[in-house]
Amino acid sequence: MTQPSTPAHSPVLVWVMGAAGAPADGSEPFRLGKADEPQLLVTDLVATRGDGVFETIGVFDGTPVNLDPHLRRLARSAELVELPALDLTVLAQAVQAAIDAHAPVPELTVRVMVTRGVEGSGTPTAWIHARTAEDWSRCREGIAVVTLDRGLSTPVPRPSPWLLPGAKTLSYAVNMAATREAVRRGADDVLFVSTDGYCLEGPTSTLLVQHGDTWTTTPADAGVLPGTSIASVFEVLRAEGATVREELMTPDQVASADAAWLLSSSRLAAPIARLDDTRLTVDAHRTAQLISVLKGQYPGSR
Amino acid sequence: MTQPSTPAHSPVLVWVMGAAGAPADGSEPFRLGKADEPQLLVTDLVATRGDGVFETIGVFDGTPVNLDPHLRRLARSAELVELPALDLTVLAQAVQAAIDAHAPVPELTVRVMVTRGVEGSGTPTAWIHARTAEDWSRCREGIAVVTLDRGLSTPVPRPSPWLLPGAKTLSYAVNMAATREAVRRGADDVLFVSTDGYCLEGPTSTLLVQHGDTWTTTPADAGVLPGTSIASVFEVLRAEGATVREELMTPDQVASADAAWLLSSSRLAAPIARLDDTRLTVDAHRTAQLISVLKGQYPGSR
Repeated sequence: MTQPSTPAHSPVLVWVMGAAGAPADGSEPFRLGKADEPQLLVTDLVATRGDGVFETIGVFDGTPVNLDPHLRRLARSAELVELPALDLTVLAQAVQAAIDAHAPVPELTVRVMVTRGVEGSGTPTAWIHARTAEDWSRCREGIAVVTLDRGLSTPVPRPSPWLLPGAKTLSYAVNMAATREAVRRGADDVLFVSTDGYCLEGPTSTLLVQHGDTWTTTPADAGVLPGTSIASVFEVLRAEGATVREELMTPDQVASADAAWLLSSSRLAAPIARLDDTRLTVDAHRTAQLISVLKGQYPGSR
Repeated sequence: MTQPSTPAHSPVLVWVMGAAGAPADGSEPFRLGKADEPQLLVTDLVATRGDGVFETIGVFDGTPVNLDPHLRRLARSAELVELPALDLTVLAQAVQAAIDAHAPVPELTVRVMVTRGVEGSGTPTAWIHARTAEDWSRCREGIAVVTLDRGLSTPVPRPSPWLLPGAKTLSYAVNMAATREAVRRGADDVLFVSTDGYCLEGPTSTLLVQHGDTWTTTPADAGVLPGTSIASVFEVLRAEGATVREELMTPDQVASADAAWLLSSSRLAAPIARLDDTRLTVDAHRTAQLISVLKGQYPGSR
């Protein structure tokens, strides 16, 4: 009998009562929960309105990558949706407790979730969920990506904070629908495009494009999520002497690139092998380097 | 001691295992749950992605209003997000079971919720939640409404079904953020406006505008939710000999109307007393009539 390539260990749940300050009842700020038992009330605003924020953190050989940037972005998301200020020290300890409680595996995916809590309570519900990472190795050789209209123009989000640009909320129905549309079109993933014709981001990833020695991503003020992965990659590239920049790109500019990737914390660097009808070169060497950076294992990277 | 105007009875939870067909284990298709005990797993896609659809149904003196139109819209929402086909007979029975299990009150709010279910299960999670309606009488004399940019233009949603126009999903973070923005501006509610300058809908309501004998709402194909309330109102107005129509309106056209309302199943008809800086006439008589229609209690209405 063959062993599965990714061993299935039980997921771990850590319940964080102190996500927004010490619990009023003086109890410990977090505790281990039972991942396979019901935990949420149906009146939690995450269940009635998708009202919450989250982060997904990759943990490689036991070490979380970009923990602080992820938690800072979570705090920023919470601020944008006017949740109570988060206690990042408690959340970091709770993430570590979840990692410690999980069986040791090479790749762990840790989700940090904060919701507006049960209707009328005014107290966020927060938990950490850690599980063995999905096996994404099939994406290493390149993914097929389709461009889909995001319905928004790049200048719109800035003056309209209620559209929540830059907030990583739990209202992902459109992102999920776009991903299903990609599959229907025989592709693996989506690159959202603005109504004024610029590439934005994937439903759960950030765009990275290489033209020679120049590496480009979408400017955060175009209404995309500021990527934690791209920050790590740019740091390494800058140290190499490359030019890194945030600049709007059309789909044609991406399709004519030397190479392009969609970056995220769990799938890491997925090279774009096809953008709509255009084939792109997959650079296996660079992809391996980017994956190493995103695993926090590249010499000189965080 | 004074009694509260709305008696507080315990909410009722009905768990619907047969929302998408008979349960595989042959058990009954729905059962009473405990509303105050945890019911949802943290890996339910409603908790990780806001991935589900819902309806809110008003129940007046024990009778649900527009039950069939609500359930048909739920089925349409489910179809738009590619959930399994819903069994509307089972859902209607479960709604009735929730009403029967709740203490008799003049106004009950019943939510019908269907999520994509626990990750990897492929089986929706569905429940009915019934509770005494919030007291909305303060809105009868008129509400202050601000226009906010929805970021989308009216022609955009039609060719882009992944933007989920017309689907009532649980991804309501933007709707909730817009409502908070209204409160910050000293108002009660929001009228979303498209980037091409047309009034759309409220975050949880439909627009109704009166110019003399002509009554107008936003066309559904502008990307708004097709209202169940507006259908009832138009039926009564049409029977009265009034002209009813779906047509795009600018904020100026709404501000210069004889009267305007935001309609929904629980708050019913809320007259707009102020739109941004313009005062509108509140027609108490018409408001009372509309409320009677939306309670299903107007002679000749459903």
